[in-house]
Amino acid sequence: MQKLDVAILGATGAVGQRFIQLLENHPWFRVAEVIGSDRSAGRRYGDAARWVLDGLPPTSIADMQVKPLDAALTSPLVFSALPKEAADPVEFQLAAAGHVVSTNASLNRMVDDVPLLLPEINAEHVGLVDVQRRRRGWTTGALVANSNCTIMPVVMSLAPLMQFGVTKVMVVSAQAISGAGYPGVSSMDILDNMIPYVGGEEEKVETEPLKMLGRFDGEGIVELNAVMSASCNRAPVLDGHLVNVSVELRDKPSLEEVIEAWNSFRGHDPVPSLPSAPAQPVIYMTQQDRPQIRRDRNAGNGMSTSVGRLRPDPLLGYKFVALSHNTIRGAAGCAILNAELLAAQGYLGDFQPIPRAAELTRS
Amino acid sequence: MQKLDVAILGATGAVGQRFIQLLENHPWFRVAEVIGSDRSAGRRYGDAARWVLDGLPPTSIADMQVKPLDAALTSPLVFSALPKEAADPVEFQLAAAGHVVSTNASLNRMVDDVPLLLPEINAEHVGLVDVQRRRRGWTTGALVANSNCTIMPVVMSLAPLMQFGVTKVMVVSAQAISGAGYPGVSSMDILDNMIPYVGGEEEKVETEPLKMLGRFDGEGIVELNAVMSASCNRAPVLDGHLVNVSVELRDKPSLEEVIEAWNSFRGHDPVPSLPSAPAQPVIYMTQQDRPQIRRDRNAGNGMSTSVGRLRPDPLLGYKFVALSHNTIRGAAGCAILNAELLAAQGYLGDFQPIPRAAELTRS
Amino acid sequence: MQKLDVAILGATGAVGQRFIQLLENHPWFRVAEVIGSDRSAGRRYGDAARWVLDGLPPTSIADMQVKPLDAALTSPLVFSALPKEAADPVEFQLAAAGHVVSTNASLNRMVDDVPLLLPEINAEHVGLVDVQRRRRGWTTGALVANSNCTIMPVVMSLAPLMQFGVTKVMVVSAQAISGAGYPGVSSMDILDNMIPYVGGEEEKVETEPLKMLGRFDGEGIVELNAVMSASCNRAPVLDGHLVNVSVELRDKPSLEEVIEAWNSFRGHDPVPSLPSAPAQPVIYMTQQDRPQIRRDRNAGNGMSTSVGRLRPDPLLGYKFVALSHNTIRGAAGCAILNAELLAAQGYLGDFQPIPRAAELTRS
Amino acid sequence: MQKLDVAILGATGAVGQRFIQLLENHPWFRVAEVIGSDRSAGRRYGDAARWVLDGLPPTSIADMQVKPLDAALTSPLVFSALPKEAADPVEFQLAAAGHVVSTNASLNRMVDDVPLLLPEINAEHVGLVDVQRRRRGWTTGALVANSNCTIMPVVMSLAPLMQFGVTKVMVVSAQAISGAGYPGVSSMDILDNMIPYVGGEEEKVETEPLKMLGRFDGEGIVELNAVMSASCNRAPVLDGHLVNVSVELRDKPSLEEVIEAWNSFRGHDPVPSLPSAPAQPVIYMTQQDRPQIRRDRNAGNGMSTSVGRLRPDPLLGYKFVALSHNTIRGAAGCAILNAELLAAQGYLGDFQPIPRAAELTRS
Repeated sequence: MQKLDVAILGATGAVGQRFIQLLENHPWFRVAEVIGSDRSAGRRYGDAARWVLDGLPPTSIADMQVKPLDAALTSPLVFSALPKEAADPVEFQLAAAGHVVSTNASLNRMVDDVPLLLPEINAEHVGLVDVQRRRRGWTTGALVANSNCTIMPVVMSLAPLMQFGVTKVMVVSAQAISGAGYPGVSSMDILDNMIPYVGGEEEKVETEPLKMLGRFDGEGIVELNAVMSASCNRAPVLDGHLVNVSVELRDKPSLEEVIEAWNSFRGHDPVPSLPSAPAQPVIYMTQQDRPQIRRDRNAGNGMSTSVGRLRPDPLLGYKFVALSHNTIRGAAGCAILNAELLAAQGYLGDFQPIPRAAELTRS
Repeated sequence: MQKLDVAILGATGAVGQRFIQLLENHPWFRVAEVIGSDRSAGRRYGDAARWVLDGLPPTSIADMQVKPLDAALTSPLVFSALPKEAADPVEFQLAAAGHVVSTNASLNRMVDDVPLLLPEINAEHVGLVDVQRRRRGWTTGALVANSNCTIMPVVMSLAPLMQFGVTKVMVVSAQAISGAGYPGVSSMDILDNMIPYVGGEEEKVETEPLKMLGRFDGEGIVELNAVMSASCNRAPVLDGHLVNVSVELRDKPSLEEVIEAWNSFRGHDPVPSLPSAPAQPVIYMTQQDRPQIRRDRNAGNGMSTSVGRLRPDPLLGYKFVALSHNTIRGAAGCAILNAELLAAQGYLGDFQPIPRAAELTRS
Repeated sequence: MQKLDVAILGATGAVGQRFIQLLENHPWFRVAEVIGSDRSAGRRYGDAARWVLDGLPPTSIADMQVKPLDAALTSPLVFSALPKEAADPVEFQLAAAGHVVSTNASLNRMVDDVPLLLPEINAEHVGLVDVQRRRRGWTTGALVANSNCTIMPVVMSLAPLMQFGVTKVMVVSAQAISGAGYPGVSSMDILDNMIPYVGGEEEKVETEPLKMLGRFDGEGIVELNAVMSASCNRAPVLDGHLVNVSVELRDKPSLEEVIEAWNSFRGHDPVPSLPSAPAQPVIYMTQQDRPQIRRDRNAGNGMSTSVGRLRPDPLLGYKFVALSHNTIRGAAGCAILNAELLAAQGYLGDFQPIPRAAELTRS
Repeated sequence: MQKLDVAILGATGAVGQRFIQLLENHPWFRVAEVIGSDRSAGRRYGDAARWVLDGLPPTSIADMQVKPLDAALTSPLVFSALPKEAADPVEFQLAAAGHVVSTNASLNRMVDDVPLLLPEINAEHVGLVDVQRRRRGWTTGALVANSNCTIMPVVMSLAPLMQFGVTKVMVVSAQAISGAGYPGVSSMDILDNMIPYVGGEEEKVETEPLKMLGRFDGEGIVELNAVMSASCNRAPVLDGHLVNVSVELRDKPSLEEVIEAWNSFRGHDPVPSLPSAPAQPVIYMTQQDRPQIRRDRNAGNGMSTSVGRLRPDPLLGYKFVALSHNTIRGAAGCAILNAELLAAQGYLGDFQPIPRAAELTRS
């Protein structure tokens, strides 16, 4: 199988680096173009990017020349790790020019015909790409988004509970510094400290999940009818967003039924067989003090959401803790999985990936 | 004025050290006896205690000999920093023997006739000492307790709102490692990590506040009729417990009324003029990202509670953030303030303290 | 190939856990027995061990029953992760009983006929096992040790420079908390702190390298004639020991010659083809601010030593920085590599491992 | 006594904030002007400065308007917390215009006629101000500098040993993040990490001490004839620079003589009676694991240098550990002490400070 060329917008930033790291040995995709800001354009990637992940960038990427944001791209698939301001209007322009754009930027998430995709929970939202192409007169182009990183452990843990009727949700987060990018949070602000504020985050956590957990009716998304409250905090941890969740469930399932719903959750075909799909999207941990951010953020290669401490909540009925890796599951990893879904569903032109056998699970 | 001799039980532990540090220049009290476990008894304090606070222990204390737990104490006032298991039965024995015991141990907090004192918010609960003495046949002895350290920012921020009718409260904490004592939390468990579990803590946070915010009816405490939910987390910070609070208020005050209630809160006489009372028990911060644990834990010499980010909560009506220093306001400092209240109210025999002028405030 | 059964002494501790993690998919060895203290013996491993590494212990190991220290072991190969006090006399007893013991304990490192093995640099010291067997009347048993974890980056970076004549060495370390085991360093001692003292460490760093870098003369080790000075510090990092090294080299090589010596260093056959041998034992990094503890400790799966910042030293001639993963390269990983060397050299009875092709390198 | 007006250049930065904090209740000086960059000029200080120290800025300062760098200043005394690039040429211009400038900037430290003052160790270098005024034709103006923050624990611990003949010095530092200013070090670079590189630092540590420990011969400074080697590392601690020092002493004093030299060191009159002078400039700690950064950085209100672990060094003869607070003793606090010395010696025109009685020591 010939691998598909992909381009990465914002390739020198912290999330851009995760894209490069996760795509290093990807079975379907091959990084062919790296795109950066004016400051980086024209330079060797290895010189332009201050690599903030462990180790060093892959040699093959380090030697690439960074392209400017207005370059004509040749890759059919484009991943966007752009900051919000830079995403406008380039993401829509690239989609209009025929590229399939899978973005991690927040800019276009709530645009009506842009699916806010999370394959395990709303793969059918991919139908919105047909609406998008029809409305906008695109043939090969598309724009799909993944959610905010703090929302990830929330919706991954709530999706299996939708069958019980999710009506009220209270979320309090502890978020890793990598969520703010690089250089992001000053060490003087966060060492031996917590900051009970993350700009713009609470508004997102109170709205985006309703679209993600909504229903595609053939023309658009009918949002979930539930009330959400979010309080967001920055914590002195490198990676991993932890949420304390209280939830009201209409059907009052037993705690055992809730746990069973999590453990048996897999998502619909072809999602479980996509290359980046974890063997188990939601893992319920029975230890009384888990999940813990450092010890569990890499579960399922950083693509599983770990849940624990389910217990009765005197106010809303149920409370628990959930954790996802914010720059893998909550950013680059999800955007890649979204693109895998599009490829598997035939949205990437004549590119025909070979799905791994469903039984070849990754842990 | 002759200072009153005090004894410290559990003097070599982390909270015991805070007692010693806070009493170093106390205008009323003088540390005369330090009591420790069998391992420490008989040794020089400076050798027996591994000092975990900044600097070194005061020389005068370092040279004292540690007494065993069963020693006959000569000090009228006894502060207890004992772990729960060690507090039984020694605290009641000492009170029965005529000592006034101000304890930070959790053991006897919920005993019917033991006041769970927090001077600014429930100074009238001191009347329970009369009940206690009458029932138990004590004349000079007494036992009063202070609350759990995580509860401190909760009740300090809720007390000024009692006038609006507090009916439902949701608390999610981020707690400092010093709350677990020394050696307490292993560094391997908490560096670059958060632990979403603190043993026994949630039960306390869901019950003790109802007693503290209750009403003394001459014979006992009528608990507050409200529902509380707590989720407790350990964070990699040294000192300071931060809580994200959502609250339902029956009378639906405006946000301005709530802030005004906090800023004007002082407690009743003689509390504001006690030596350890902060100038302002509750400080509302207007900055969007405050209070922060490291930057605000020492407000009011560690005795003020800092509150911020008051905003509407879609579920309960109001949400905010509150912070108290866990080993000062939430432990030793509060036990000292409780003893000051007892002294000012005449419960310490013929010891007659000279209250500082109320206008001589500390910040 | 039938895998060889191995036993792990001290299997529930932090280093014991690293042995289990590193042996999970080992091509030659299979964990057959886990041995613990009286507290753990008889219990299921998963219950007895508080797993401190990421994730959870492998299921197959978690279900094993922990054996007591005096159990009769059936495994030909025994790894010891015992604390110093517990290693005496069990390690010698097991060797005398016919087991090959590869230990990480410090107890017997300086015993005359116990090789202090580090395959890349002194594989020929394995000959001391023949001396050992002859002197002690053993036929199949053996006892080999690996070095202290702080010494690892020192000797790995000095070994390639031996050709230039190493005469004086000054070492100042910054050591990870995991070097102290679990629970080890209290979080209250190390958060926002450094401790300029590690008990017993400086003495080891000033002596063990002279044996390791010494010459086997057929009967014993002739120690290197050099003067070493060490100052050891504990730092708030999880894993990875960093050393600032100044060194005097008799032959005054150029900086380029020193770098070339590091980059070309491989060790003698069969070491490069052993399963746990890194592709490159010593990696010289050209970036001005590397190696960094977090970013480079996992180089070569935690088995490579990263070196950087070679520059002239006004006092000794040369200075540089070196880094090794303390619980992989500096403990369990090295003990496993030592055992691989013994197996490849025929010291494990009739066990015949199949060396991977030398060209199949790992990075 | 009328307090002297002072201006602070670079008042909004991290060191500028320390000046403001330390001068809040200064007995001689009063902050009258705060000067900032173009971005800050014209704004209220409280709005322009992101306060990074604990708590909030003093109200009186918060309400001041920030002046631009080219404003005509009215304060006779000017403290400079400017970054190196911004210090040129404004510091010399202000001195030429008649202001006494006490700078923390590195720019002019090695200029021949600028004293690199550290009152306890080289108060006589103040004579260089007379040379400066004569050569440059200034009457009231002057420019004095304090040392780099990493040098502080080095020279404070070496100065008392000058009597024994200091000939060779090896320094390895662990430096706090606050040394890089704000925002300075990204949290993603330093959490769970150490960086073995601080730009430009080693060159300073190998040269500035030779000037500071030199002799004023009436016309200039005769530098100390010694060889210094420095290796600098950034550590995940907030404040406090720790150095591991090895030193060769010509006269081979006993360890007891060295300790006695430290403990008895006070500096010459009038230094011990200056308001910011610590009671004991150098404190030798006898505990085996001290000084520690967090626990000892505030010794003597952050103005004392803590020393410990004196022991023989196999290479240079003596080794020990030393610690100073980098933004107090190593920056703002030292610049203030320098200005106090100038005031006491009559270099501030007709301003006549009232020295505190020497016996009124601070600890």
